[in-house]
Order: sequence, then C-alpha cells, then structure tokens
Amino acid sequence: MKVTIIGLGLMGGSLALSLKELKGCEQIIGVDTKLANTVVALELGLVKEVNSLEESLVGTDIFIVATPVKASIAIINYLLDHINDEQVVVDLGSTKLKLCQTFKNHPKRKRYVAAHPIAGTENSGPQAAISNLYEDKKVVICEKNLSDDNALSLAVKILVGVGMETVFMSAEEHDKHLAYISHLSHVSSFALGLTVLDLEKDEKNIFNLAGSGFSSTARLAKSSPEMWKSIFAQNKEHILPALDAYINHLSAFRDDIANNDENKLSEKMNNANNIRKIIQ
Amino acid sequence: MKVTIIGLGLMGGSLALSLKELKGCEQIIGVDTKLANTVVALELGLVKEVNSLEESLVGTDIFIVATPVKASIAIINYLLDHINDEQVVVDLGSTKLKLCQTFKNHPKRKRYVAAHPIAGTENSGPQAAISNLYEDKKVVICEKNLSDDNALSLAVKILVGVGMETVFMSAEEHDKHLAYISHLSHVSSFALGLTVLDLEKDEKNIFNLAGSGFSSTARLAKSSPEMWKSIFAQNKEHILPALDAYINHLSAFRDDIANNDENKLSEKMNNANNIRKIIQ
Repeated sequence: MKVTIIGLGLMGGSLALSLKELKGCEQIIGVDTKLANTVVALELGLVKEVNSLEESLVGTDIFIVATPVKASIAIINYLLDHINDEQVVVDLGSTKLKLCQTFKNHPKRKRYVAAHPIAGTENSGPQAAISNLYEDKKVVICEKNLSDDNALSLAVKILVGVGMETVFMSAEEHDKHLAYISHLSHVSSFALGLTVLDLEKDEKNIFNLAGSGFSSTARLAKSSPEMWKSIFAQNKEHILPALDAYINHLSAFRDDIANNDENKLSEKMNNANNIRKIIQ
Repeated sequence: MKVTIIGLGLMGGSLALSLKELKGCEQIIGVDTKLANTVVALELGLVKEVNSLEESLVGTDIFIVATPVKASIAIINYLLDHINDEQVVVDLGSTKLKLCQTFKNHPKRKRYVAAHPIAGTENSGPQAAISNLYEDKKVVICEKNLSDDNALSLAVKILVGVGMETVFMSAEEHDKHLAYISHLSHVSSFALGLTVLDLEKDEKNIFNLAGSGFSSTARLAKSSPEMWKSIFAQNKEHILPALDAYINHLSAFRDDIANNDENKLSEKMNNANNIRKIIQ
C-alpha cells in the first residue's frame, strides 16, 4: 500500500512515524508546501520520500490530509477532482461540518472519509512529531454513510492500525461537542496566557511562582496560531455559544467572590467537582 | 526535634511523609479537628501519633499549620497565645497578606513564619498525600524580617529539607502574584468544568471526546471547595482584577472570532505563544 501524507506537522509527521510499524504500509510519501517542513521531515526520518501533490496522484492508495483546516478544503478538492475510483482521501482536521458541506455533492464524495483523531499536543511542526501520538486515542469519523464501504474500510485500517478507537457521528454533532471539549479549552488557555503575560510586563519575577496548576491551564496557549485561526473560523457557530456560556459562568463566579457569597461559591465548586466523573 | 502538623490533608499529610526521611525529625505528631482524617492518616502511616492542639503545645519545637486558610487564623492565634519563646509556628496557606496583617502586632509575631509552598495537586484529604509533593518546588516566605532569625532558620530547615527552594517577598507581592499565577487558573478551571457539565446534561456522549487538552485545562475543577472558598475570600482584592482582565481578554477573543478578524486573532495567539518562555 502507498500512503501519501499531506502536511508534515505534528499530526501528519506523527502518523508517518506510526505507519512505519503498520503491516502493509510499504510506502509512505510526504507532501508539504513548506519546503522547510519537508527538509526537517526527511532529516528526522519521518518519511523517506517527499513529492509534490501532483506527483503523488500516481499510485497512491490513500491520501491523508493533515494540514490546517483552512488549507484542507483546496487540497481535498484538488484530490477529489483528480483521483480515480479506487483511491481514498481522508482528512484529519479538527472541524468537520464545513468540509462535509463543501464536498457533499462532489462526484467523488464517496471516496472521501472525514476523520478527526482526538489526539494532539500543544506543539506543532515536524519536529513535534511523536510515534505514540495516536495510541489509545479516539478518532471520530463523520457521515460514514456518505463514504464507500471500501474507502471507509481502508481509512479505518490505517486509523485503528495506529492505535485509535473509532467513534461515528454526524459532522454537526462533532463540531458542537468539540467546541466544548476542545476548542473552548484552547480559547481559555490563550486568554489565560495573555492575561498573565500582561502582568509580567511590570512584574518580572512572577514566573518564579508558576506552579503545575498554571502550566496545566495555560499550556495550550503555546498552540499554533495558523492551525487555530482556521478552526475558530470554521466552527464559530458552535464556539461562540460555548464561549458565551463560559464567560457567563466566570462572571457569576466573579460576582460571588465580590459579594463574599461563600454558599454560592461552594455550590458552584461542588458542582464543578463532578468533572471527576469524566477526567481521571 | 518534635514537629506537630495541624491539618492532615494533601499538604500536611505529604509533609509528614517527607519529614520521615529528614534527619533530626524524631517525632512527627498529627492534629486534625476531623476525626476521620486522623484515622485515615494513622492507617496510611502518614503519622504514628495524633494529638489535640492543646496537648501538642507541650514539647513541640515547630508547629506546621496546613489547614484551609480560613481555619488557620484561629489556630495560629491560639498557638501564638500559648507557645513559649523557643517554639515556632509556620503556616503553609495559599494567601499570606491577611495572616501577616492579623498577627502583625501579636506579642509573639517573631515566632511566626508565613510560608507558602508552590506545590499541590487537584486532590485533597489525607488519602491524597504523596511523599514527593515538595521535591524541586519553590516555597515563598513572606515578611522574613518580622520573624526571629532562629525561627526562620528552623522553618527553612524543614521546608528546604523536604526539597524546596526559598523565595522571599512581601505578603502583598505574594498575594498579587498568586492571584494571577494560581488563583486565576483555578477559577478558569472551575468555570470550564461548569460550562461543559451544563452541556452534558443534554448530550450524554460528549465525554467520549475529551482529549488531553480538556483534561489539562479542567483538572483543577476537582479542587477542594472548602480550601478554595477561603482563598477566594482572603485574596479577593487581587483575584477580582485578575479575573476582570481575564474576562476582558476572553471577550475580545470572542469578538474577533465573531467578526472573522483573523489578523487580530493571529496577533493575540502569537502574543500568547510567548508563554513558551515561561512554561516548558
């Protein structure tokens, strides 16, 4: 099998590393519009061969699109316009509705599989690639009935093969859930980083005191602006209400502190403690 | 040396575990107003002996007050009223200004050392105690000049002895910095937990999708309401402006998403990326 990975950053680079171990993946080809990324990917041994998108059309069994979601649309469109009826295109982007809507009526829609691995780190670029990124993670596959069975099978073979468990849902459900469970966390962290960096301008020693709680809540502020600006653009419909709900909870919490209302604060914190049921 | 630890939760229990390894700490006595905590602490072997606060007055060289900060005031006051001129009282609370103000004119102020280990987890109670909690952490000591040299030395011996590095500052500075670097993170996490739990009421499957980013930003929502309500009460003067600044950043971020302003979003995220300089 020949796998072509488009986008050699954290997601694509890590997939390349994992696929080396998967039986049947004889050839893994890398494509990246950034020359620097292809150089680093070759140096690090993520892939042995790089190609242009055009060249990769010949002989590839499955294309994995692992670019920022804004770039994905044009790439998937190009691929669907040029592939034959056996080739498969999978994308790994963090938003799914926009893509599913865009390709809904494409004549090759059935060769496309819309996937999203719930895996990542705050780091980006080929140098961030790690071989176990996908181990024991979930992968959401959207609108599975719009893909050919054999296209879905091949995508699942790859995604499960690197250690993930499939979860099937509509693109609409996916984007709503992800707004709360991931995109909101990123906005929260970016804003926390900005707030604390503001203070640092005047107070140079503040970071001596940063403990593990701060690192944990602010680490996503390191995330790639390029990747996240397109996620925010493509999922604003769900991110805005999530963010409004979050700001409302924060404001209510703020008012309880201002009013010394320990009962209300205790009630809120006891409710929040229920998150224990979800995260270990 | 006889050390009496008042409060056998995460902080006190972990200190008891660490002190077992420290030369010169022959006797470690536990005190807790919650009978259940003393039972668990004895069962887990955190301490070999428990006592009442009154009984502990005899023969103790250093008292470590590791209770929620609201309870600490009465306990420290009782101790300072009853100790002799050789005994030392240290507290480990997360707010320092209120305590330093309260005891500023106490006749035994010089026997008191105001400390705050920048260490903790989201778990609480004696069962949460771990032996390496204080290893390679910072401990802030406030108003060191108001403590006797030999009281400060004994406190430092214990705190550095369990693996911490001292940082000296005023109680005012401490409380301001901690508002940004710790207390704000906790409010952020509590509110994130509440926001996502609201959604879960309708959408049972959402947590299938919770990745490491969500866990990381929301884990502090598990923190003890009892401990945190008193921190919020004692440091509201600094927490409120920090929280207002945070809500302002979030609202601005929200507006940029709503307005599709990718330039402003990129600028904000690039600025937030500077957090890399601070957290590894």
